[in-house]
Amino acid sequence: MKIFAYGIREDEEPSLKKWEEANPNIEVGFTKYTLTADSARLAEGSDGVVTLQTSPYTREALEVLNKLGIKYISIRNVGFDNFNFKDLNDLGFTLTNVPVYSPNAIAEHTVLLMGRLLRRVPEFDEKFDNGDFTWAPTIGKEYREQTVGVIGTGHIGRVVIKILQGFGAKVVAYDVYHNDDIEKQGLYVDSLEELYKQSDIITLHVPLFDSNKYMINDKAISQMKDGVYIINCARGELIDTDALIKGLDSGKVAGAGLDVLDNENSVFGKVWSSVDNIPNEKIKNLAKRTNVIITPHSAFYTETAIHNMITTSFDSNKALIEGLKPNNIVDTTK
Amino acid sequence: MKIFAYGIREDEEPSLKKWEEANPNIEVGFTKYTLTADSARLAEGSDGVVTLQTSPYTREALEVLNKLGIKYISIRNVGFDNFNFKDLNDLGFTLTNVPVYSPNAIAEHTVLLMGRLLRRVPEFDEKFDNGDFTWAPTIGKEYREQTVGVIGTGHIGRVVIKILQGFGAKVVAYDVYHNDDIEKQGLYVDSLEELYKQSDIITLHVPLFDSNKYMINDKAISQMKDGVYIINCARGELIDTDALIKGLDSGKVAGAGLDVLDNENSVFGKVWSSVDNIPNEKIKNLAKRTNVIITPHSAFYTETAIHNMITTSFDSNKALIEGLKPNNIVDTTK
Ligand SMILES: NC(=O)c1ccc[n+]([C@@H]2O[C@H](COP(=O)([O-])OP(=O)(O)OC[C@H]3O[C@@H](n4cnc5c(N)ncnc54)[C@H](O)[C@@H]3O)[C@@H](O)[C@H]2O)c1
Ligand SMILES: NC(=O)c1ccc[n+]([C@@H]2O[C@H](COP(=O)([O-])OP(=O)(O)OC[C@H]3O[C@@H](n4cnc5c(N)ncnc54)[C@H](O)[C@@H]3O)[C@@H](O)[C@H]2O)c1
Repeated sequence: MKIFAYGIREDEEPSLKKWEEANPNIEVGFTKYTLTADSARLAEGSDGVVTLQTSPYTREALEVLNKLGIKYISIRNVGFDNFNFKDLNDLGFTLTNVPVYSPNAIAEHTVLLMGRLLRRVPEFDEKFDNGDFTWAPTIGKEYREQTVGVIGTGHIGRVVIKILQGFGAKVVAYDVYHNDDIEKQGLYVDSLEELYKQSDIITLHVPLFDSNKYMINDKAISQMKDGVYIINCARGELIDTDALIKGLDSGKVAGAGLDVLDNENSVFGKVWSSVDNIPNEKIKNLAKRTNVIITPHSAFYTETAIHNMITTSFDSNKALIEGLKPNNIVDTTK
Repeated sequence: MKIFAYGIREDEEPSLKKWEEANPNIEVGFTKYTLTADSARLAEGSDGVVTLQTSPYTREALEVLNKLGIKYISIRNVGFDNFNFKDLNDLGFTLTNVPVYSPNAIAEHTVLLMGRLLRRVPEFDEKFDNGDFTWAPTIGKEYREQTVGVIGTGHIGRVVIKILQGFGAKVVAYDVYHNDDIEKQGLYVDSLEELYKQSDIITLHVPLFDSNKYMINDKAISQMKDGVYIINCARGELIDTDALIKGLDSGKVAGAGLDVLDNENSVFGKVWSSVDNIPNEKIKNLAKRTNVIITPHSAFYTETAIHNMITTSFDSNKALIEGLKPNNIVDTTK
């Protein structure tokens, strides 16, 4: 039995080696290249492939895999928008993903962004670079004094709530679906408007749909408290960047922590040698502010998450090869 | 009745105004100057003074206050080492301090330093400044996977423990005095050596005594795990800086978060225009490392803490003037 993996980064190799050792009956091959019509040939002799990339999976690449007799593709991440389901179905592929790899990684990053804003870390960093070792007037705020509005109480939002409660913060939550535990704790408010009204910090943990694209727009921001902090570690398109910039300019929004951005693919994953060279004026505008912290979609990026992405994807691929039906098979009929 | 306050900073004024409004029967005067023989005269007509400074309180200054008929001094901070008790007793002063102003401020800062190290924020910041929006290879670790050794389970250490438990981290603790709640939770280990052996992160929350000066020395570090993180938001002299530098050089210590430093007064509170100009080679050595985060004794510096420092010191001074005995009178007989 053999599994071939694409797009393997150095930081994934320790987890990959561990999986190999734990599964001695399976041969593992891998390459740092993503899956393309060219690299597809590298999988010759394999029963399944494991892959991760943001670029589209082309029909040509899938056709090569199909000719090599491969039927099983396991991605190491959640999102499968870069597959054309028709191609997969035509060529008889079964696809698995990793629906949850580490809610903690993202939740911890989220809460860290809040703290970095509350304690004005970027301003302290700037002082530090100038050899300025005074503390005044860069006074901070405490988590414990904040009311945090958590939008979306799924896997990630619930961990965010747990962490914030450890800090002694007050939490209010909104979700179209009410989680039992959060309901029992009485944290839900009935509307987003109510959440906006009460919250000193607002954090987003909902998936992106057509219906909530740019949900954080001028109107939503106008319903928030003066001096609100906005955190987004979900999807960039949930926030209308123009509205956010307007809010920051007026001081209505005191700061933002953003791991995702509208149109982030024009900027993230690349090196621009300086913030001045960012080829997107809105993102550059945000990046130049000391009260905005941007991280390059790295909230998920922990050793634990990477370990889980490798382990779950290889386990699923192995299960498919063995004729089993893992519960993370992607429904490609819809 | 009148209280005069020294060394009032801009960030203290809102809290001072609030206290004034809540105590309309008391006249409040203040200056930004610290208490010296010269400025002491400004307190003329007052019944008590409130003060905060790191420089020594001179006998000359106290003599002027004494001649003005002032008997009550309330400091806005904890430490009173810059008073000569003999002077206070000779001149008949009663002194109060603010023993606890916000354990949360320091505890939250402590946990934030851990997260900034775990998620390699200084390295991400450096990438950001270079317009580098990639995430690999700057992989992070999660709080939840760490065993944190908390040395000192007083006001601050206990809040640190509570916050870390919200993150799902494992906590082990050491204290010469066992707190009931921490004992019940079974968190205490019997020796520092045992704590060093188990901990991925070690954080200090004990006062400084002659007996624990440089407790984190070569020997202690040799007993720690490879790749340990060390956090100090207590007192700089608890760590032997040479030993820490050696540990960082060898990789034994993966990083450090330091709000206090041995000999920090040579550097903190001042502006050196660049890190290169720091007039202390050991501190400069630490400051130049991306795996060391230095904050200028600012862990305490939150709006809540400042509010409590103002409120408690003025309340105590008022109580003394009214002939009451607040429970934060400093025992100057020892
Ligand atoms: N930054 C990163 O690295 C990263 C990594 C993984 C996931 N994410 C993002 O985080 C989001 C949340 O992830 P999760 O694992 O918690 O998802 P989840 O499916 O467990 O939870 C999502 C929650 O949102 C709720 N919801 C859906 N639509 C809503 C709406 N319009 N209003 C309010 N609530 C709504 C759902 O009921 C559910 O409780 C994902 O959708 C993804 O966009 C980001
Ligand atoms: N960075 C800052 O801005 C800042 C501000 C305030 C206080 N501090 C420091 O934090 C320290 C802790 O503050 P706190 O309010 O929690 O004090 P605390 O008195 O409430 O707690 C101190 C604890 O240390 C224990 N202890 C004493 N000696 C010990 C030893 N040798 N080994 C183990 N445990 C020992 C005591 O039993 C007590 O439980 C203070 O002593 C001070 O140095 C720093």
